[in-house]
Amino acid sequence: MQYIWINGNSDQGVSPDNRALAFGDGLFETMRLSGDCISHDQLHLHRLMDGCRRLNIPFSQATAESDFKLALAVVESSAHKFWRLKYIVSRGATDTGYFCDNTVVPERIMLLEPFTRDVVSLQQHGVSVIPCRWRLSHQPALAGMKHLNRLDQVMARQEWSSSDIFEGLTADSEGNWIEGTMSNLFVVDKTGCVITPRLDNCGVAGVMRHVVMNTLCPKLGLLVEEKNISTFESADEIFLTNSLIGIVPVTRLADKTYKIGQITRGLQRALNTKESGL
Amino acid sequence: MQYIWINGNSDQGVSPDNRALAFGDGLFETMRLSGDCISHDQLHLHRLMDGCRRLNIPFSQATAESDFKLALAVVESSAHKFWRLKYIVSRGATDTGYFCDNTVVPERIMLLEPFTRDVVSLQQHGVSVIPCRWRLSHQPALAGMKHLNRLDQVMARQEWSSSDIFEGLTADSEGNWIEGTMSNLFVVDKTGCVITPRLDNCGVAGVMRHVVMNTLCPKLGLLVEEKNISTFESADEIFLTNSLIGIVPVTRLADKTYKIGQITRGLQRALNTKESGL
Repeated sequence: MQYIWINGNSDQGVSPDNRALAFGDGLFETMRLSGDCISHDQLHLHRLMDGCRRLNIPFSQATAESDFKLALAVVESSAHKFWRLKYIVSRGATDTGYFCDNTVVPERIMLLEPFTRDVVSLQQHGVSVIPCRWRLSHQPALAGMKHLNRLDQVMARQEWSSSDIFEGLTADSEGNWIEGTMSNLFVVDKTGCVITPRLDNCGVAGVMRHVVMNTLCPKLGLLVEEKNISTFESADEIFLTNSLIGIVPVTRLADKTYKIGQITRGLQRALNTKESGL
Repeated sequence: MQYIWINGNSDQGVSPDNRALAFGDGLFETMRLSGDCISHDQLHLHRLMDGCRRLNIPFSQATAESDFKLALAVVESSAHKFWRLKYIVSRGATDTGYFCDNTVVPERIMLLEPFTRDVVSLQQHGVSVIPCRWRLSHQPALAGMKHLNRLDQVMARQEWSSSDIFEGLTADSEGNWIEGTMSNLFVVDKTGCVITPRLDNCGVAGVMRHVVMNTLCPKLGLLVEEKNISTFESADEIFLTNSLIGIVPVTRLADKTYKIGQITRGLQRALNTKESGL
């Protein structure tokens, strides 16, 4: 069951002139819908609009909000509890070539489908991850954005096919661990400080990462710090985040096992009291 | 007048699940058609297949050759002399997410349109270019490939809108000049050596760049060297190349003017005797 809207219509095809297709010229958000709302919709919209400003895409937030209502109408009348909404904003369709003037109208592609993954089990039991050999592109001017140039993640994701491995961690060109292919990375050190990599040169500034750093850690009185992680030697707990899975503990990284610690559990509880079902 | 084929059919829409759209997960070639042939088709096919190998896209060259025949049939029966063919190979269409198994079938998107730009005039009179402020992503693992992650070029191309400027030059993170947004860069120094930037960390290994380095320079007995270009101080001549424009002299870079030198003219003549019309 998949719903597709292109520019707000239930069409089935994207124009071959679309710049998202031609150049990866656009942004996307992947969101969790439950009940009658999009979780953290304001944070997703904020990141999307910030990305549009950085890429000079003249997109109106009202358009996104209007699109989101189409998805919410489906979800409200459905028996499925959770849905995944992928929302792509392309700069639009133009002639061949990189040039694009101000009159080009952004195009939106929206895919909605039930999200049936057993997230509660992932959160409860934790996951195994591997370190990827693929290194992330170094590009400060695009760092943090959830743009459509995602070959780094595609290539890193090819490094495993076993379903026992949940995620692969990717490092920057200097060997600092930055994130998973589809999640952000957190480490808790022996002192109880929650650490997440800086995203100055690469990486996606995840919405759930933002929630952990700016809502949950302060709420629990936990110190949170953005800094380079070149080794996991001092890691007492490791966890991953994204908008669909929430906070998921890492119980195995390569050959080493990790316990699911009290800080990870505390953050999970804080998130779950904030959002029913996660 | 534009012809579009998707997977060899004259459809009009690309699937919203296509990975070129979702992630820029694919490659492209932009080719010049004239008469009844694609200029340097074997070099284009070679680069395309090399890119497929590097990205692990299980694509068959025979499929591309079969697609090209569709375009050639249009060109052969047309009054237009020159055509531009853009050929996109996407890894295919998959579910949401970066994962992709070996059973996914690559999808091809092909756009063909008359190429009416006055290339002879560009080649004869030269062009003005600007240095762009945008720096290219540093990514050795993708360098040289003509992949679909082209936000760097999109962003650099936004730095000018005057039609007096033909191209913008982009540098790597260390300030070495690498290429134009849609062309490769050559400099001739005072000794007559033809220099083009190394593409170890970023940049596209252009087909016309290859022709200049491996066919034309040896034919004319010119020394050709790949090395970093951090300044144009020692540049006696500058020219740009790509498959559509051939060899185009730079007559102005920022505030400085350059003469169209004998080596550039010699290379143009050598190319033009090789290919009628360019």
